Amino acid sequence: MAKQIPENSVGIVRPVCLHFDEPLPLRSGKVIESYDLMVETYGELNDDKSNAILICHALSGDHHAAGYHDPDDEDEKPGWWETCIGPGKPIDSNRFFIVSLNNLGGCAGSTGPESTNPATGKPYGPDFPIVTVRDWVNSQARLADHLGIEQWAAVIGGSLGGMQVMRWAISYPERLRHAVVIAAAPKLSAQNIAFNEVARQSITADPDFHQGHYYEHGTYPKKGLTLARMIGHITYLSENALRGKFGKSSLKGENFGRDLRTGKLNFDFGVDFEVESYLQYKGEAFSSNFDANTYLLITKTLDYFDPAVDYEGDLSKAFEKGSCKFLVISFSSDWRFPPERSREIVNTLLKAKRQVSYLEVESDGGHDAFLLSEPRYLNGLTAYLSVVANESAGTRGADHAS
Amino acid sequence: MAKQIPENSVGIVRPVCLHFDEPLPLRSGKVIESYDLMVETYGELNDDKSNAILICHALSGDHHAAGYHDPDDEDEKPGWWETCIGPGKPIDSNRFFIVSLNNLGGCAGSTGPESTNPATGKPYGPDFPIVTVRDWVNSQARLADHLGIEQWAAVIGGSLGGMQVMRWAISYPERLRHAVVIAAAPKLSAQNIAFNEVARQSITADPDFHQGHYYEHGTYPKKGLTLARMIGHITYLSENALRGKFGKSSLKGENFGRDLRTGKLNFDFGVDFEVESYLQYKGEAFSSNFDANTYLLITKTLDYFDPAVDYEGDLSKAFEKGSCKFLVISFSSDWRFPPERSREIVNTLLKAKRQVSYLEVESDGGHDAFLLSEPRYLNGLTAYLSVVANESAGTRGADHAS
Repeated sequence: MAKQIPENSVGIVRPVCLHFDEPLPLRSGKVIESYDLMVETYGELNDDKSNAILICHALSGDHHAAGYHDPDDEDEKPGWWETCIGPGKPIDSNRFFIVSLNNLGGCAGSTGPESTNPATGKPYGPDFPIVTVRDWVNSQARLADHLGIEQWAAVIGGSLGGMQVMRWAISYPERLRHAVVIAAAPKLSAQNIAFNEVARQSITADPDFHQGHYYEHGTYPKKGLTLARMIGHITYLSENALRGKFGKSSLKGENFGRDLRTGKLNFDFGVDFEVESYLQYKGEAFSSNFDANTYLLITKTLDYFDPAVDYEGDLSKAFEKGSCKFLVISFSSDWRFPPERSREIVNTLLKAKRQVSYLEVESDGGHDAFLLSEPRYLNGLTAYLSVVANESAGTRGADHAS
Repeated sequence: MAKQIPENSVGIVRPVCLHFDEPLPLRSGKVIESYDLMVETYGELNDDKSNAILICHALSGDHHAAGYHDPDDEDEKPGWWETCIGPGKPIDSNRFFIVSLNNLGGCAGSTGPESTNPATGKPYGPDFPIVTVRDWVNSQARLADHLGIEQWAAVIGGSLGGMQVMRWAISYPERLRHAVVIAAAPKLSAQNIAFNEVARQSITADPDFHQGHYYEHGTYPKKGLTLARMIGHITYLSENALRGKFGKSSLKGENFGRDLRTGKLNFDFGVDFEVESYLQYKGEAFSSNFDANTYLLITKTLDYFDPAVDYEGDLSKAFEKGSCKFLVISFSSDWRFPPERSREIVNTLLKAKRQVSYLEVESDGGHDAFLLSEPRYLNGLTAYLSVVANESAGTRGADHAS
């Protein structure tokens, strides 16, 4: 029996693997001679190719942002941004042609550490070059070329995805009309970097890591990656969300999220509290589906992002070119990239005399709120993108078409 | 050449090891048949024994709170609370008899996982029973008995030390006149527990851990403990402190604490940012001087602390007995136990109709601010404890003496 797919889903989708033969020079000075990108698209490109939206994924995301792959698997979960992408949803597949890719260095089919290094005939492993957000955006621009898209109606992303959006506005200011930057920051702070470094060391300390050559050893640093993800996961969730999720049995007074796994303390070093069990579960589930070398690489990509560096630290100078409009969104309980960091982006854009809208959403969802069904967030995004869709309809055959 | 010791230090001190033969029943149901406590004292006990102060240490502390051990070692650092304890300092050794101990389960000489288990003739290791704050306070009460101190002028502690202070006020309400609770919380939240659990798993995942029996294997889970401490250390420091400490080379605009170790990005998986190097250094230094089993144990002690549990979740009921006065202190940038948590303690005490003073100190020092020379903090503590010292002088030979 085929599974029931909600009407407001893009439904069954098929990723495609696109091969690029032109060498890609990287920020590090290295060059990737050729590479594959895994891509999904939702909706139809209009005649003048003015309704295309690029989705940029965050650390753990990939090309599968919406819909389902298997018509028969009733347990299959939809793509990672199913809340936002689909017919009638904020990023409306009835009105937009939506492009989502797995970035270079990823582990969902695009060229990355698991791929064969043509120089050795073995997997790249730790020798896969560190790619930056700028490198990704360059590869995405080539993807746009391939698809015949001269200018995106919008480039949209949350967290690390939002950093790619900013880089698009800096590197290719004429190639997007709208930049939607969600739950992001102008660059990582020392504390952000510190968490990433501990996560990396958790992986590299795992005896099954073998300096990143675990593929050849037939091992996998599952425990290290589980730990890394547990650390990350704590920073994605708000204190209040944890209290709410694990404070069901609380008595009078404040709820601290101290629900016990077996109803009592065990006085050993096993699991006592539900939150411990939950984190363990989340970490293990993640580590079953993600490559540890990719995790190392993408945390470095995050750490390295700092577009102000080429402008003597003045990010506003980076944003002086181009005419795209910005929507910046933050969430009150996000302590990884708090609203203050989004306001820094907004103030920088204002200093650069750019047009920017800003939405600060009250939410207990923490950093991960950008993936959740927060009504004010979804409504704000819907309202903004409706205007964008109307523009695209109005530009049919106009100057914007390539 | 003997080293120069500052005049406001207690100078050279000698710890003593006190043996207790009476079995100590624990919260877990287990019993420690006999045990040692390492103790230091500073200042002189007055005739009526009314000027004694107990210092309770936090996760990484021990009995060596002030002064120096070695008259010849010019590089020796003083005790962990040298900022607060000494002649003329807030906890004034000219006026008080100050008692500091290494708690049970510790690794600085008191009975703990490194000690020989009389049942096996081998080190306890992971079989050392999990002790709770209540158990500690019971052992501290026996220490008070041993010293002939019927009632402390004050019991003082920061962080986990502050939890011991609260437990004193609950378990032995008549045995202290003042309770000074600094940078603490009524209990850990789910987020606090989550960080502790990741730290524990970092240790237990180390191949040198051997289920805690590393003493017998001639190994030591140094890497795991280093990682655990790195995680902890991030939570002890404020975002702003990190930005200040590692943002010396910042250009225009905001300072994010992104100083580079070698002045450039290295595009490999080694250290790029100063903050990474600093955390690594701090973690390694700590792991050279601390026992991994004790770290596991004390994080559980932290997780388990919840004195409201015996009062249907209403902590104010726990505080209804006794007449000691409270001073509660918090620090603005402490995100481990933020001021909000201290205000919860204050409100609970007010509900219990207890006399409480509250000082919220503006500081960038994060959770560790309680160990730092924050003038408003030290001045507030000095003012409060001056009154306590005057009381002690006034009670000479009065009812309070045992």
